[in-house]
Amino acid sequence: MNAEAPRVAIAMGDPAGISPELTAKLLGQHDLLALAAITVIGDRRVLALGEKAAGLALDIETVDAAGKAAAQPGRPIFLDLKHLDPATIPMAQATAEGGKFAMRNFGEALTAAKARRFDGIMFTPFNKLAFKRAGNPYPDEIRWASDLLGWNGACSEYNKLDDLWNARVTSHEPLREVPDMLTHDRIVSAIEATDSTLRRAGIERPRIAVAGLNPHAGEGGVFGREEIDVIAPAVETAARRGFMAEGPFPADTVWLRARRGDYDVVLSMYHDQGQIALKLLGFERGVTILGGMPIPITTPAHGTAYDIQGKGIADPSATIQAFRTLVMLTQRQSAPVAA
Amino acid sequence: MNAEAPRVAIAMGDPAGISPELTAKLLGQHDLLALAAITVIGDRRVLALGEKAAGLALDIETVDAAGKAAAQPGRPIFLDLKHLDPATIPMAQATAEGGKFAMRNFGEALTAAKARRFDGIMFTPFNKLAFKRAGNPYPDEIRWASDLLGWNGACSEYNKLDDLWNARVTSHEPLREVPDMLTHDRIVSAIEATDSTLRRAGIERPRIAVAGLNPHAGEGGVFGREEIDVIAPAVETAARRGFMAEGPFPADTVWLRARRGDYDVVLSMYHDQGQIALKLLGFERGVTILGGMPIPITTPAHGTAYDIQGKGIADPSATIQAFRTLVMLTQRQSAPVAA
Repeated sequence: MNAEAPRVAIAMGDPAGISPELTAKLLGQHDLLALAAITVIGDRRVLALGEKAAGLALDIETVDAAGKAAAQPGRPIFLDLKHLDPATIPMAQATAEGGKFAMRNFGEALTAAKARRFDGIMFTPFNKLAFKRAGNPYPDEIRWASDLLGWNGACSEYNKLDDLWNARVTSHEPLREVPDMLTHDRIVSAIEATDSTLRRAGIERPRIAVAGLNPHAGEGGVFGREEIDVIAPAVETAARRGFMAEGPFPADTVWLRARRGDYDVVLSMYHDQGQIALKLLGFERGVTILGGMPIPITTPAHGTAYDIQGKGIADPSATIQAFRTLVMLTQRQSAPVAA
Repeated sequence: MNAEAPRVAIAMGDPAGISPELTAKLLGQHDLLALAAITVIGDRRVLALGEKAAGLALDIETVDAAGKAAAQPGRPIFLDLKHLDPATIPMAQATAEGGKFAMRNFGEALTAAKARRFDGIMFTPFNKLAFKRAGNPYPDEIRWASDLLGWNGACSEYNKLDDLWNARVTSHEPLREVPDMLTHDRIVSAIEATDSTLRRAGIERPRIAVAGLNPHAGEGGVFGREEIDVIAPAVETAARRGFMAEGPFPADTVWLRARRGDYDVVLSMYHDQGQIALKLLGFERGVTILGGMPIPITTPAHGTAYDIQGKGIADPSATIQAFRTLVMLTQRQSAPVAA
């Protein structure tokens, strides 16, 4: 365990939805602020908008350049990039300006993290359409972050809803390409990375349920052979190495087992295998984690909620969970794997 | 509308689980018996086992060959094939004998339906493992039924949970083969068949949500092009023909829309896209419908529940829903499609 509090960046997300309000509400939680040395990155005027919505007046030290003051546990710093006056853009709309604002904040956080000035990053919700309008070239945050961190190793998106996790072997890929991407080594690596990430998050012996690929997990080879030829051997390899991995299970029943507590995490073979389940289970309350990179990155799973912008009714629980999860992931060393 | 009550067969399923009890409980619902001329196919001793579990003594006319007596609404007939003494097999286990019993009952129902002696078939739960042990060569019931009915046309499995339906373009196929199976014509046909089936079930203007194939429905072509090249054009063709079809929608959010009542049915591109959602929504309470063949076939969605065999606590609601759905489907003519 790292005895020092982690240094974390909070990158402000899209300014036209509930992100400013969520940032303000998080900074209003004084007990949480003690858990990390927090640098919030954005524009002070956008945070002021969030304070107004939240009904809060935050006493936060503001600097106009990194390094002018050091954040301390309980004493966050606001890095004011002075790049967006929110009065100049329409609220509750996806604009190029809003997209550029959020991109810049996240980019600054990643650049500073690459220079080892942060141990982890959290961001409040982005808006995909605003990013598109702002010309963001990245298909998802994980490729963006890997690129800016200069990371070429394996990394993966995890989702967490209360105590139930989801990991996946493939993610934002055409479904057509998924079967050939599922190699023995890739699945074993995903099991190892899942185990490592959950251990960092405080689960001592993560119980991993591995999903199959085909309907009924192939029904003994009748509807596809990937379970027999690739997935089951990979699960066996991982189990021999000491990981608590079981499966492959049919994708449509594995979630029933996981929901009743039989497993800590479901390892899906592709994006929708997990996302269909999580969204129905109420994933808007959950947290997305980008793991496997030099630093962990978390964000609430829900979106920018333009429909309730400025109303003060945005629920900060997922943001608070994203922050707590980030602190867990930055504090803990990866435990050695049992042989 | 057919003014005469439909002639339906109830094929008894696996004898070692709750199927006998469910059959007995259904036959104990006197108001339901008036809706159809029912012929139950099985062994009278297996039904007696179900009566004992259910705490019922049924007064049902029993014949040892088809045609010896005609079922009437309110006066069901039991066709006693005398092919299994349940005392000779272990309960709560999948056996070849149990599999053969259920296969024979379903086979007799299909053969008689092909000879136009039934307008529809319902069966109580089968056990896949028992079928395997009995040497059943069919991968699923729909191929089995098509074969015995001599049907070469399109047919499909539908699932119904309360008022929410699921249909699918592909079903028990290797996931690897799904993308190339999704042709424009196949999707349009599936939309038409879905519309027809739901109309027969009493929904006047079925609202059909069509799912995409790729994550985020391809995110505008970034993660796959099937939505742009095939699915969207098929939805447009169907919409031009007057069907209330919309989409393609991302598979992980379409269920949230459908659950809140925006649509009557989700048309999935592949098996698990629907089954993951339905199982989490509580599909064990639901009904499976085999549609598109000359006669409709229904069954409760849950399994044989060996763990509660003989206890009298089996919930007959899904069986009752399967029966009611069958009666709806057999009575109604397919309404003409609005041009």
